[in-house]
Amino acid sequence: MNDCIFCKIIKGEIPSYKIYEDDKVYAFLDIACDAEGHTLVIPKKHCTNILDCDGEYLDAVIRAVQKISRHYVEDCGYEGVNLFHAGGESAEQSVFHLHFHIIPRKSDDGLSLWPLHDKRDLDLGEICKKLAL
Amino acid sequence: MNDCIFCKIIKGEIPSYKIYEDDKVYAFLDIACDAEGHTLVIPKKHCTNILDCDGEYLDAVIRAVQKISRHYVEDCGYEGVNLFHAGGESAEQSVFHLHFHIIPRKSDDGLSLWPLHDKRDLDLGEICKKLAL
Repeated sequence: MNDCIFCKIIKGEIPSYKIYEDDKVYAFLDIACDAEGHTLVIPKKHCTNILDCDGEYLDAVIRAVQKISRHYVEDCGYEGVNLFHAGGESAEQSVFHLHFHIIPRKSDDGLSLWPLHDKRDLDLGEICKKLAL
Repeated sequence: MNDCIFCKIIKGEIPSYKIYEDDKVYAFLDIACDAEGHTLVIPKKHCTNILDCDGEYLDAVIRAVQKISRHYVEDCGYEGVNLFHAGGESAEQSVFHLHFHIIPRKSDDGLSLWPLHDKRDLDLGEICKKLAL
């Protein structure tokens, strides 16, 4: 898409800190500077998020996420990874080109990334009836 | 694995609120009651997390995540989804059978799930040199 900042990064029209590239996927450092090694993995074919992504590109993105995650743990001194994806404005998505966040982790990194802490009064049986496929 | 709680859920030895199942994947409601529709998607073949997952099962899991996410948005009144994965103890993983979390979202749900807010003093050029594949 002409006005998509991530499409411009893929085309090299905007510079990026490239981590990995193949025929379907591009990965680069997030410039937010909020976690060491915070990486974004994106498909080269534009889509908004996981909801509208072609399956072939989705497979390629998750395989690249796996490859980069393994590299971070096996070769770069990290011990684990967190993955995040925001699909839709209501899910706090801010750039509307699919991206998976990889946050490489170490046990002493001082981060606490699991975001849900409050209990809610939910009837799981009723919710399951509504949502089951 | 004999002592894995998610393997027991797949085998029906522990009850669960089932959302979806195919030959490679099982999905069910998280019992934490921390967000309406909080769903876990797991491979039927045991692996620890994204780092050691067979590619074929990883593809099946992400395709199931997409299918369920689309169902939640297209059929169940949600507007978007957040996805999370914890790979490794240092990444706050607590059950050591790969699982992707789906949190279905609505703009008025009162949740705020993006977990990184503080800036760090990072040299992205140096980090890129160390991490690039």
